[in-house]
Amino acid sequence: MSIPYRVLSLLRDQGPLSRAQLPDRLEVPRPRLLAELDRLVAAGRLLEAGPAASRGGRRSTLVRLDPGLRFAAVDLGVGSVDIEITDGSLSTVAALSEETDILAGPDAVLAHVGELLRTLREAGHYERLDALGIGLPGPVSFREGIPVSPPIMAGWNRFPVRDTLARDHGCPVVVDNDVNVMAIGEKHAGAATTVEHLLFVKIGSGIGSGVQVHGRIYRGAEGCAGDIGHIQVDGDGPVCACGNSGCLEAYFGGTALARDATAAARSGRSEQLAERLGTRGALTAVDVGACAAAGDAVSVGLIRDGGRRVGQVLATVVSFMNPSMIVIGGGLAGLGHVLLAEIRSVVYKRSLPLATGNLPIVMSTLGPRAGVVGAAFLASDACFRGENIVAGSGAGRP
Amino acid sequence: MSIPYRVLSLLRDQGPLSRAQLPDRLEVPRPRLLAELDRLVAAGRLLEAGPAASRGGRRSTLVRLDPGLRFAAVDLGVGSVDIEITDGSLSTVAALSEETDILAGPDAVLAHVGELLRTLREAGHYERLDALGIGLPGPVSFREGIPVSPPIMAGWNRFPVRDTLARDHGCPVVVDNDVNVMAIGEKHAGAATTVEHLLFVKIGSGIGSGVQVHGRIYRGAEGCAGDIGHIQVDGDGPVCACGNSGCLEAYFGGTALARDATAAARSGRSEQLAERLGTRGALTAVDVGACAAAGDAVSVGLIRDGGRRVGQVLATVVSFMNPSMIVIGGGLAGLGHVLLAEIRSVVYKRSLPLATGNLPIVMSTLGPRAGVVGAAFLASDACFRGENIVAGSGAGRP
Repeated sequence: MSIPYRVLSLLRDQGPLSRAQLPDRLEVPRPRLLAELDRLVAAGRLLEAGPAASRGGRRSTLVRLDPGLRFAAVDLGVGSVDIEITDGSLSTVAALSEETDILAGPDAVLAHVGELLRTLREAGHYERLDALGIGLPGPVSFREGIPVSPPIMAGWNRFPVRDTLARDHGCPVVVDNDVNVMAIGEKHAGAATTVEHLLFVKIGSGIGSGVQVHGRIYRGAEGCAGDIGHIQVDGDGPVCACGNSGCLEAYFGGTALARDATAAARSGRSEQLAERLGTRGALTAVDVGACAAAGDAVSVGLIRDGGRRVGQVLATVVSFMNPSMIVIGGGLAGLGHVLLAEIRSVVYKRSLPLATGNLPIVMSTLGPRAGVVGAAFLASDACFRGENIVAGSGAGRP
Repeated sequence: MSIPYRVLSLLRDQGPLSRAQLPDRLEVPRPRLLAELDRLVAAGRLLEAGPAASRGGRRSTLVRLDPGLRFAAVDLGVGSVDIEITDGSLSTVAALSEETDILAGPDAVLAHVGELLRTLREAGHYERLDALGIGLPGPVSFREGIPVSPPIMAGWNRFPVRDTLARDHGCPVVVDNDVNVMAIGEKHAGAATTVEHLLFVKIGSGIGSGVQVHGRIYRGAEGCAGDIGHIQVDGDGPVCACGNSGCLEAYFGGTALARDATAAARSGRSEQLAERLGTRGALTAVDVGACAAAGDAVSVGLIRDGGRRVGQVLATVVSFMNPSMIVIGGGLAGLGHVLLAEIRSVVYKRSLPLATGNLPIVMSTLGPRAGVVGAAFLASDACFRGENIVAGSGAGRP
């Protein structure tokens, strides 16, 4: 990594530091680092913020990220969009959430994102953006910044999301899959800050995972690594939306759970679910969670069955990947203890003992914010990487 | 990577190069590189080997690895040990294979390795070793150079293999799991030389895999990544040597195949297997392969069933990892086409289409040599990494 990138990331993650401390922290020769600091101050990325606390001897100057840095973080779901404006340290400056319909297509949805950003700008939360990060609910070619054959984003295939947003907002843009973005969020400021090999599992309408190896997202040969939703749990199982049978998503996730809960309500197996179906007209995972919490045995059973299926797939993945931690996130993480207990019990029983001996399986600590935190991190990364053209650096060394 | 490491690796992989070419190939400033070359010549690692072919202008000098460099590569199996002495380019100088018994314990087996090396030294194949690489048939803590709870290596748990060999042979030693070593071999000089994300699957007595991410072995949090032999294929399946039921290894691999073939011979289901059992007293995978080649339907069926089980596990792993290539090696790779066809058919049918669209599934090209090639590579890597203390290099940059 370039020296400017390392300086800026360190100040993002640790806050202001003194000019005297930085050369040691980054293990960069002093004269070279001080020259870089001057250049970054001149470029408007850094600010000298008065004298540092004395460590004996001459007082050093405190250096911090320019307080005017602004990143936009966008978490686009199937039916909602969450936006945050952050400063350089990724602290939230302002946030907005609205309903949207991904099926309205990229022109309409990205125009909606643009309107929300304009609202935030006009309210004074930013003048111009230094970078924008966005997570999409489907497979993404990270290199090209486009969705690739996304199953639940009709009309979006290969739409130039990155280039369109970069043109509209005049800043570097990073596009990634929503699960990767959530994994990045948990690693930056959630349950997994010190974790080297992270398996982040999102259980929402569908099920997916984000994989970090040595602290960085692993994407695989075609960018689809971590797609565990269509792993076959049982060849004779229910038909999945993807056309195959017995996929994990055909058994569990928001869609499958709503289907099974509705069937249990209609068949009279669960009075509580039937009552809720009567009142509301339709059931979701939230209803199942509420009925389970109120003691409905059928609802508890549905959550347990789902957890067992997820555990089955994770047991295989854990034996293969030997991760340092599993974090469970997504909407259905709200089902809480019953779900987590079942997943843990299957993974701890079935995976290789060596792989589970020190393996924590925990719930996301960022919850619904994991996506925007990860998107803000990606934006900062793109911005800081842009600062890599340095006078006098060694030939060819980035 | 340090400049000396990069120079030495380049010359290992590409053969002699001219002093004039090296700065461009390595993107290192010319004066700095030439100083490093002088130092490596003085240290006995490099040799100036006469004038390079003219490219117009003044003739440059050809630089090559010192022809006296010697690495020892040891592939230790349950019942055999293969040793090669190589030069700096990993070309074989001499090779020896003998039977051994891993259950004789580390003292006896490492003494046996020492005798074989002495034989090779006394025959004039080396004077002193520059490094030694060894693969063991069990889980290894790579960092510590010791086997960790190896299931088929009674008496070896936490034995200091690296330190013992380093003391006995007076050189740097690298110890790794045999499957990782084979994967490294296939990446260096086998089927996978250009592959970024490799899944190498060894089907021998048992079944394991070696995983490379961005061209480097991925070991996981506890060093047991890739252990696919004990993934549960069917909870109601046969009991495995590990104590669980329905593991992949309980269904297939040399041990399971011998068991099933013997049962088929005894029950009279296969006349050909029964005849062989009568002649030889015991059956192995080789007999099943021979009978299958001679048209025995039961033997073909056993191989197909095994291939289907392996395919089932790989289908899940492929959806999760999205590798660039799968290479099948180990003793049972000799079962050839029938096995490969079955594995391919299950993986291509069951994995995510995006993950299999460009996924070659091929047999090892190094065959039984994969282990020694990988061990020689690890030895060279350890030797070249040792060359990293350089006068005048930047503070703290490795």
